[in-house]
Amino acid sequence: MYDSKMYELGAAASVIRTIFEYGNARKKEIGADNVFDFSIGNPSVPAPAKVNETICDLVKNMDSVALHGYTSSAGDYEVRQTIAENLNSRFGTDYSGDNVYMTVGAAASLTVTIHALCEAEDEFVVIAPFFPEYRVFIEGAGAKVVVVPAMKPSFQINFEALEQAITPHTKAIIINSPNNPSGVVYTTQTIEKLAELLRKKEAEYGKPIFLISDEPYRELVYDVTTDTPFPAKIYENTIICYSFSKSISLPGERIGYILVPNSVKESKAIFAAVCGAGRALGFVCAPSLFQRVAAACINEKTDLTIYRTNRDLLYQALTEYGFHCVYPDGAFYLFVEALEEDAEAFCDKAKAFELLLVPADSFDCPGYVRISYCVSTDMVRRSLPAFAALAKSYGK
Amino acid sequence: MYDSKMYELGAAASVIRTIFEYGNARKKEIGADNVFDFSIGNPSVPAPAKVNETICDLVKNMDSVALHGYTSSAGDYEVRQTIAENLNSRFGTDYSGDNVYMTVGAAASLTVTIHALCEAEDEFVVIAPFFPEYRVFIEGAGAKVVVVPAMKPSFQINFEALEQAITPHTKAIIINSPNNPSGVVYTTQTIEKLAELLRKKEAEYGKPIFLISDEPYRELVYDVTTDTPFPAKIYENTIICYSFSKSISLPGERIGYILVPNSVKESKAIFAAVCGAGRALGFVCAPSLFQRVAAACINEKTDLTIYRTNRDLLYQALTEYGFHCVYPDGAFYLFVEALEEDAEAFCDKAKAFELLLVPADSFDCPGYVRISYCVSTDMVRRSLPAFAALAKSYGK
Repeated sequence: MYDSKMYELGAAASVIRTIFEYGNARKKEIGADNVFDFSIGNPSVPAPAKVNETICDLVKNMDSVALHGYTSSAGDYEVRQTIAENLNSRFGTDYSGDNVYMTVGAAASLTVTIHALCEAEDEFVVIAPFFPEYRVFIEGAGAKVVVVPAMKPSFQINFEALEQAITPHTKAIIINSPNNPSGVVYTTQTIEKLAELLRKKEAEYGKPIFLISDEPYRELVYDVTTDTPFPAKIYENTIICYSFSKSISLPGERIGYILVPNSVKESKAIFAAVCGAGRALGFVCAPSLFQRVAAACINEKTDLTIYRTNRDLLYQALTEYGFHCVYPDGAFYLFVEALEEDAEAFCDKAKAFELLLVPADSFDCPGYVRISYCVSTDMVRRSLPAFAALAKSYGK
Repeated sequence: MYDSKMYELGAAASVIRTIFEYGNARKKEIGADNVFDFSIGNPSVPAPAKVNETICDLVKNMDSVALHGYTSSAGDYEVRQTIAENLNSRFGTDYSGDNVYMTVGAAASLTVTIHALCEAEDEFVVIAPFFPEYRVFIEGAGAKVVVVPAMKPSFQINFEALEQAITPHTKAIIINSPNNPSGVVYTTQTIEKLAELLRKKEAEYGKPIFLISDEPYRELVYDVTTDTPFPAKIYENTIICYSFSKSISLPGERIGYILVPNSVKESKAIFAAVCGAGRALGFVCAPSLFQRVAAACINEKTDLTIYRTNRDLLYQALTEYGFHCVYPDGAFYLFVEALEEDAEAFCDKAKAFELLLVPADSFDCPGYVRISYCVSTDMVRRSLPAFAALAKSYGK
């Protein structure tokens, strides 16, 4: 009577959502200030002031029919050109608006790209830990997910394992740097080695292997000294999936883009397939007002000081308490080894201290937990004794 | 290397788009005032003033993190409840927010519903003429399109043909009233007869047959005397697909909803499948600001006087010139018999009079043309001599 897979996807409460809802109930019981909810990756920093100023300016000064009307399916050309020029000025690339396809956020960037590329028997390689929806998107397009665990404790790519995972069916590798949930940023050396391996495999199989670079956290890197390569500059068959959700704190507005550089094999045909996939999935065009907001605010940055303060507080304190933490250069996640083998049991125990953490099993990385530090610094400070007590309960 | 079907969808210029682009080039050659472009169905009436007022109010007065943050995947519950209550007060239904799933516009309402319902070997019946993207959405979900031509000249449903088209594989019938491109509104008698037939076939095959009621033009009906039934009130297995694009002139902002009434067989499971399909296709949530705008403006109406004036002018004049026009009770389209068998040749001839009309072949209704009258009344008036001359060139 209905698609049972869609039913399962809709009926299955996600682990994160379940913890979030437990948290809301618990807050009602014991007061919001007494629950330390680190479960949800929703930006806690408001959008830059210019976002709201631009919204009001546009509705006051632009013709309503033009402002709220359809744009072309790939997006308003001026918006696309502005995005291309911004990338060119930052990364020394030579993109134009013709390379940019505006999307309804990061998830749409991924589903449209995957549906555009996907043929029968295709495999998409993901590096664990990875955002759980990758599996939903890849399987939803009828392709197979191939998981390659990252190296520990650096959480950079394990190239030996990756080389073994690539087959003649491999359509693409999906990377996400800065990473959700590890917070790790891939180094230039990692991306160069990846490019080298992919070129070797392309030559071996006589076909392109695409690198899908999922970059919603691109702008969330905390130290100027961090090595932050731009993968599309290093590997020619890179397709960028971007979202403005985290960079200017607009996750609910659903605005992002796909960038298909001219260096991509048959780039024009692939861009056309992207347009076709957007059409088939029902996207029509990205929200028109927010296309223009994104372009007007392309140089705006979210205030990173809160996230950085939270990161520093948590990393230092938790390390001191005896936790093993992956040092996060970016995103707003701290990835921590659970103090027992079963991360779910560990998270249950953490609840006794009112700490809401996410076991990383659903990120295909058992034994770890994700701490989302896109929360108030005040809450971080108040939570530290609870983390200390949790460590102590494990004899640390 | 990429999905060839997606490539074809992206590379194929739609008939409407091609005419629209010819129009833009022609306007540059001979001046915009000398081209009578009736090709595009983009609302020409601005959004009600309250839309822009609400946008500014929200960005000024609501917390930025809450306003621009994720809503739940089905949408903000207050917004969903407001929509349900509005329908209840208008149609005497008893919906709640739990029946409403917010979408990224009409196309998303359809793709999400179709993907939620679609199982192997499913057939979806459409009544010709129909919006060409129906075919893209149905085939994109892996199902088969079954076309049933409407009765002429009333363009109501041909029940004999429909009965023959329904098989044990029929998952749903899609209707669109007021209709794009015919402008026809289905009568209560039509919907009641449809309900009767579907119930009979459900009993025969021992399974539900859903009615997907695609209602983006619901609010665009010009005469208070027009019989405008609410299909979900008449047939229990109706799922409503709605969009605010036309009702408050926000086509580019991508906001709409799916409504699954409790009367639908296994409605809770189907609602879950809708949530799952939204997730798999990459929608996450509908744009958060415009969810709230839609709720705040639920009682706003676009100014229909311009559309009605245009309809009356065109229908009267064209009928007088010897054209056979379907009388449009709603939407903003006039459906006219071409003056020769080949509607494409007829539209080519119309170009000589600077009239840009859309042949209805892509709507699966050869021999007709669609005139979109969501244009300025001034252009309609100035175009009339060209229509007269076109008729005369055919000896009318």
